[in-house]
Amino acid sequence: MIVRDYKEAETGERCVSAEGWKSVRLLLKGDDMGFSFHITTIFEGAELHLHYKNHFESVYCISGEGSIEDCATGEVHQIRPGVMYALNEHDKHILRGETEMIMACCFNPPVTGKEVHGPDGAYALEDDAA
Amino acid sequence: MIVRDYKEAETGERCVSAEGWKSVRLLLKGDDMGFSFHITTIFEGAELHLHYKNHFESVYCISGEGSIEDCATGEVHQIRPGVMYALNEHDKHILRGETEMIMACCFNPPVTGKEVHGPDGAYALEDDAA
Repeated sequence: MIVRDYKEAETGERCVSAEGWKSVRLLLKGDDMGFSFHITTIFEGAELHLHYKNHFESVYCISGEGSIEDCATGEVHQIRPGVMYALNEHDKHILRGETEMIMACCFNPPVTGKEVHGPDGAYALEDDAA
Repeated sequence: MIVRDYKEAETGERCVSAEGWKSVRLLLKGDDMGFSFHITTIFEGAELHLHYKNHFESVYCISGEGSIEDCATGEVHQIRPGVMYALNEHDKHILRGETEMIMACCFNPPVTGKEVHGPDGAYALEDDAA
């Protein structure tokens, strides 16, 4: 059994950040769960262009408000507490934080912890990052 | 892209319940994400004896307080907002809600939506449930 506390993880190497967001990875590939689990904060005013070409991701809004734009259709979905979106087609999207948003995120395949967003908005697979 | 709202799902067939808990399954096997994602409420005073023999599960506490007892070691871990536990060894455990707890749960393999807890505290795999 693994037990981890966000408050401890937030101050260590499990916490990664870049412009507009930070993410605390509570489960990574090395935990052998078959998925990774992150608590991600999107900062107020952030506009993130993302495209997880190699991963399925689900995102559940715990707090805050914003929107997600589906680049394929132009459709904009409002995000508020209780809304979940899932990128089941590796959907290219734009995430906007109207306020700070705290999100519970699952990735399959699991993130290793070493990825950064590439210029294309994707995380590379581990093998691609060699 | 899948977008679902807890408030809508809570009143439909995605919501299942039994003594001590209810669970809203926002993603199930049929969504082809490779995991399922549930928002589960553990009621105040509940004591649940669980053993997911066939699944890995991670649980992140969004609100509330309680504890998880690892039956193999007798160790008790406090649960409060921000604490995550992961049953990476199919750990037999007892979950206790001191208050109502709201938890974000991921299962691998994904739950189909038809499982109920067996007398052994496990969810059967789909093939076992024939």
